[in-house]
Amino acid sequence: MIKIGMLTSGGDCQALNAAMRGVVKTLTNSGEKVEIYGFLDGYRGLIYGNYRMLTGSDFSGILTVGGTILGTSRTPFKLIHEPDENGINKVDAMKKTYKKLKLDCLVILGGNGTHKTANLLREEGLNVVTLPKTIDNDLWGTDMTFGFQSAVDIATNAIDCIHTTAASHGRVFIVEVMGHKVGWLTLNAGMAGGADIILLPEIPYDIDKVVDAIEKRSKNGSRFTIIAVAEGAISKEDAKLSKKAYKEKLRNRPYPSVSYEVAAQIQEKTGREVRVTVPGHVQRGGSPCPYDRVFASRLGSEAGKLILDGEYGFMVGYRNREIVKVPLEEVAGKLKMVSPDSSIVKEGKLLGICFGD
Amino acid sequence: MIKIGMLTSGGDCQALNAAMRGVVKTLTNSGEKVEIYGFLDGYRGLIYGNYRMLTGSDFSGILTVGGTILGTSRTPFKLIHEPDENGINKVDAMKKTYKKLKLDCLVILGGNGTHKTANLLREEGLNVVTLPKTIDNDLWGTDMTFGFQSAVDIATNAIDCIHTTAASHGRVFIVEVMGHKVGWLTLNAGMAGGADIILLPEIPYDIDKVVDAIEKRSKNGSRFTIIAVAEGAISKEDAKLSKKAYKEKLRNRPYPSVSYEVAAQIQEKTGREVRVTVPGHVQRGGSPCPYDRVFASRLGSEAGKLILDGEYGFMVGYRNREIVKVPLEEVAGKLKMVSPDSSIVKEGKLLGICFGD
Amino acid sequence: MIKIGMLTSGGDCQALNAAMRGVVKTLTNSGEKVEIYGFLDGYRGLIYGNYRMLTGSDFSGILTVGGTILGTSRTPFKLIHEPDENGINKVDAMKKTYKKLKLDCLVILGGNGTHKTANLLREEGLNVVTLPKTIDNDLWGTDMTFGFQSAVDIATNAIDCIHTTAASHGRVFIVEVMGHKVGWLTLNAGMAGGADIILLPEIPYDIDKVVDAIEKRSKNGSRFTIIAVAEGAISKEDAKLSKKAYKEKLRNRPYPSVSYEVAAQIQEKTGREVRVTVPGHVQRGGSPCPYDRVFASRLGSEAGKLILDGEYGFMVGYRNREIVKVPLEEVAGKLKMVSPDSSIVKEGKLLGICFGD
Amino acid sequence: MIKIGMLTSGGDCQALNAAMRGVVKTLTNSGEKVEIYGFLDGYRGLIYGNYRMLTGSDFSGILTVGGTILGTSRTPFKLIHEPDENGINKVDAMKKTYKKLKLDCLVILGGNGTHKTANLLREEGLNVVTLPKTIDNDLWGTDMTFGFQSAVDIATNAIDCIHTTAASHGRVFIVEVMGHKVGWLTLNAGMAGGADIILLPEIPYDIDKVVDAIEKRSKNGSRFTIIAVAEGAISKEDAKLSKKAYKEKLRNRPYPSVSYEVAAQIQEKTGREVRVTVPGHVQRGGSPCPYDRVFASRLGSEAGKLILDGEYGFMVGYRNREIVKVPLEEVAGKLKMVSPDSSIVKEGKLLGICFGD
Repeated sequence: MIKIGMLTSGGDCQALNAAMRGVVKTLTNSGEKVEIYGFLDGYRGLIYGNYRMLTGSDFSGILTVGGTILGTSRTPFKLIHEPDENGINKVDAMKKTYKKLKLDCLVILGGNGTHKTANLLREEGLNVVTLPKTIDNDLWGTDMTFGFQSAVDIATNAIDCIHTTAASHGRVFIVEVMGHKVGWLTLNAGMAGGADIILLPEIPYDIDKVVDAIEKRSKNGSRFTIIAVAEGAISKEDAKLSKKAYKEKLRNRPYPSVSYEVAAQIQEKTGREVRVTVPGHVQRGGSPCPYDRVFASRLGSEAGKLILDGEYGFMVGYRNREIVKVPLEEVAGKLKMVSPDSSIVKEGKLLGICFGD
Repeated sequence: MIKIGMLTSGGDCQALNAAMRGVVKTLTNSGEKVEIYGFLDGYRGLIYGNYRMLTGSDFSGILTVGGTILGTSRTPFKLIHEPDENGINKVDAMKKTYKKLKLDCLVILGGNGTHKTANLLREEGLNVVTLPKTIDNDLWGTDMTFGFQSAVDIATNAIDCIHTTAASHGRVFIVEVMGHKVGWLTLNAGMAGGADIILLPEIPYDIDKVVDAIEKRSKNGSRFTIIAVAEGAISKEDAKLSKKAYKEKLRNRPYPSVSYEVAAQIQEKTGREVRVTVPGHVQRGGSPCPYDRVFASRLGSEAGKLILDGEYGFMVGYRNREIVKVPLEEVAGKLKMVSPDSSIVKEGKLLGICFGD
Repeated sequence: MIKIGMLTSGGDCQALNAAMRGVVKTLTNSGEKVEIYGFLDGYRGLIYGNYRMLTGSDFSGILTVGGTILGTSRTPFKLIHEPDENGINKVDAMKKTYKKLKLDCLVILGGNGTHKTANLLREEGLNVVTLPKTIDNDLWGTDMTFGFQSAVDIATNAIDCIHTTAASHGRVFIVEVMGHKVGWLTLNAGMAGGADIILLPEIPYDIDKVVDAIEKRSKNGSRFTIIAVAEGAISKEDAKLSKKAYKEKLRNRPYPSVSYEVAAQIQEKTGREVRVTVPGHVQRGGSPCPYDRVFASRLGSEAGKLILDGEYGFMVGYRNREIVKVPLEEVAGKLKMVSPDSSIVKEGKLLGICFGD
Repeated sequence: MIKIGMLTSGGDCQALNAAMRGVVKTLTNSGEKVEIYGFLDGYRGLIYGNYRMLTGSDFSGILTVGGTILGTSRTPFKLIHEPDENGINKVDAMKKTYKKLKLDCLVILGGNGTHKTANLLREEGLNVVTLPKTIDNDLWGTDMTFGFQSAVDIATNAIDCIHTTAASHGRVFIVEVMGHKVGWLTLNAGMAGGADIILLPEIPYDIDKVVDAIEKRSKNGSRFTIIAVAEGAISKEDAKLSKKAYKEKLRNRPYPSVSYEVAAQIQEKTGREVRVTVPGHVQRGGSPCPYDRVFASRLGSEAGKLILDGEYGFMVGYRNREIVKVPLEEVAGKLKMVSPDSSIVKEGKLLGICFGD
């Protein structure tokens, strides 16, 4: 008999259900008897002992369904050691739930913040296996996270749509793409959508370079310019600020996000009409793309195998086209960023894309 | 020999190319010799004599392509009688171009504003045939405009994506849908996407009714609420203001659009987390949906037939499943709105949708 | 207290769930107490008393889900009066189930065959309200059926894909489209996909006309030709055969379907390479398109209202953009076909489409 | 000045245009003067000197367009040394064209057969750089080929659609997936679409194992079974035949393809209704998916760089997430197959998928 708890934490994304189905199918097909405790709304469910007993049939038919059947919530790691509003110690409460239910293992699906807490639970002696979920693809230790390719598809589709309208009106169009503090999503969606300019957090931009690129396109007869801007993009000047000073700047910025600031600057410097589109949370939703369904199923299946083998303390990741187990302590707290010297960025430049640097 | 000028004016939308292809295929297949002057960027091309000579092959392969191969621009009707920056009288200039090229007819594709100018040109003695293009579906004299169904598809897809993320996080989500001052797009996308609350310009909302609907859903066990808000939605109080006072209010409103105002009010009154998504111009773009391709092709074809028959002064519209010709003077300056007493709204209420009234 | 039975019969299609959800939401939102008996697998469930009790929550979240939560089966009308393998009289059995459960009304969703049986049940004294479901759009008494537009979208998408490959290889490509004995689906998907030749059951084709159209395109520089062939398309010679002789011919035809016969003839007469694609049942599946979701929801809602008003014996249909109730005896046994003289066919010809006539 | 010839050969697929655009953009952005000879319809254009001079603008706007702007054809390698119908030696003719135009390099996009000929041209002294195009993903020397992921998306979508209809009717459904003699496409689309049984060329099937899997599902309460069958799937008995005997068997097989044979066997052994769907060439068509657009652009860009560096005789491939150059002699004539012992197959089995072995 194997007793596992399962939870999804942080921002939701596509293929969470596919991954959980992979874990559960692998366990139930193994012949072992399995008890599954599905904790609701992320770590909160673990803290407050809020769960549902699940069986194999709960995971039937969810391969293609977006979101998470367990619900999710954000439980910031930096507040994990602070008691909740009722004075409850969160870490203790999680351990208590785990022990009370006599779990053999916790399966935790999440991104960066989630992995910090997962690693903490491991250090506290709990058996943990994790799965790398995030549309940002910024998790250390894995070449790829599920949710990412689905979000690329959605963001690209938005750029595709903007292309026809930008071309018709002869405008400059900015599409703001998600990705938190890293540029993977913007870089891939931008290249897939044929964006002319791509601004990433990892490559601070010089607004004058951006303006030059627009003017150059215009001189060469192009009626329009499409700019893919990462929500975490940053200008060269801002990148020089201290973290505190930058936060202060953001607080006082008279724009809802960086795209609007870039738009205002371009408008001012060129006199051109600039429009901003922010697909936002749409990028997290909908049915996972086939790539993510296969990928999440495979990861889930390998997580199930780890549990059957009694191997704990790992994130199941993907490296060099192999599915691998990565020690949680290697993953937690590190960010996988786009290197300005990576071949994909160089190829982007060869293709004529302006990165504003 | 038939000489036609063609232009697309106003905001672009899907199936403009499909409609123009329909006109041109019908003319060229008729055996008549045809000369086609494609005016660039809407009325501006007609004013300044900026055009390209086009042949049948220019219209080959564009059935499925979004945007407009002629480009478009907005030429506000209320400024039509004012001279341009160089003192040129726009109406005279358009007539001059028309006469200089010895055109038999102008084919004009556009929405409300476009039709006012088209009717003016008709009054000035030009031969005009128009086609009803707009994602807003607000043109008088036709049950349907092309672009509309494609935009419904895109907006619905956004709501679908939001559904999975809203359900996962247990949030209130607002999706702001285009449509200018009418609610067709929001109503249809909202119903198609399963929105729980739909706010339309034609049915001013009471924010307390909206809040009640959210709380009632919560009591019945729903973790989330999806609200489709038309970009032109208006509250009951605001609807009582004079046009001038309302404009003044909008100018001073500390929100980029009505959705953010609704979000702030809900957040304040319920304490719930509310997220806003604005798909924006994406709704105008991309390949036209099959419905619009067929519809625009049919309208275009009938416009071609009118020209062959020498019948001018009409918009080709769609009424009671028949394609009809509608005198331009009946169309210009009127708005087709959603009636609060229409059967679709009543059905929406039977389905449990809250309209905030 | 209202007790309704509900069943879906015949080939499945998109938006069956959306329509049932519309009925149930309308009933449960009315304040009346409602008991819902969902009969499984079409009339079979009614015959053998095989049902599930359903509540409002069973219909939550199914607006966007294809197929039918009740399952379906084909129960041919011409065998309805014949006893089953165990000697059970089907009509009596259905009446017995209805009476035993003390139902107030049966809600039946189906196409042509289904409506014959539904009308029979009405004649036998049962209260019946029906909804027009079929991708074929061949139901009499309604301008539109749900499932149709979704199937058009899928078939069009197949033609779109074939377009790029046909153009690359310079081939003749046949796409066989569903639609049973009528041509609505092929006509609309063919026009939306830009098919060059469209063969419909209602317009028997002359293969030499088809060959001429291909050669003419070739002479005009087109590398490829796309032909949309309805699964029920028929040649001029075959159309002259008696029904019996035609059936005999089909039985002996050395081709899986008409498309392969057309392909062989073209290949023989032109020496060109012809490829056949048959998307098949894919056309019935997947999430309903937004048009169908709205449409089916509206029809379902009006069906719910009829039940609340105690009005039975009707199909809820759509005519001249109004949702109407149509007496079942007017619907049963009649086929709505594409008229060769309809404006849409004429417009198709103006656009240059060859119908083989 | 760099003079390149470019051609696309073999079955077309998605992202051919994206890849060519990548090559050309990289060359033209380099500052070098470039002359581009686009050979029409594959090697045939090279043999007969049939080409178009292309400029950068010919490659603008084709990133998202399926097919190939150069056209393609199949020129079987085994006939390459045989003279054509007019006695022309093909290899000599190709060399002659190359020399006459004083090309610096040939850029060849194709799959397995294409690479054999490309390698032959290299051996004959021509400068060649190739790009790995095929929906089959069976090219040696690269982890991935472009077109593959787009085809996975389309085939998965077909399985998704079949899922709803299979579930509604309680049937066994077979979806035949392309892939020539390898199973990559079927394996990935099958896993993504949640197929219950997957039959691959690399894992010969035992029909009784397939039947057992269907019956087992039925016992466990599943109403339906979905089987993804590769067009090259083969039974255990057939796999034992000599190549010649197997070919003989195929010639005499009374079924259009293996799927129909499997269907007939299942129907006979279980009495269940089995339906077959063959999406066919649709899988090659349509706009490339975002993954393929990025991937093909990157490969194209690196091919451009090789040419700028004067490095010839390579295929640009993808290994361990790095874009690499692979000597053509290593690629030609080898097939990359799915290993029955690969982790993805093992994971599939853990997930409960039956492979018929």
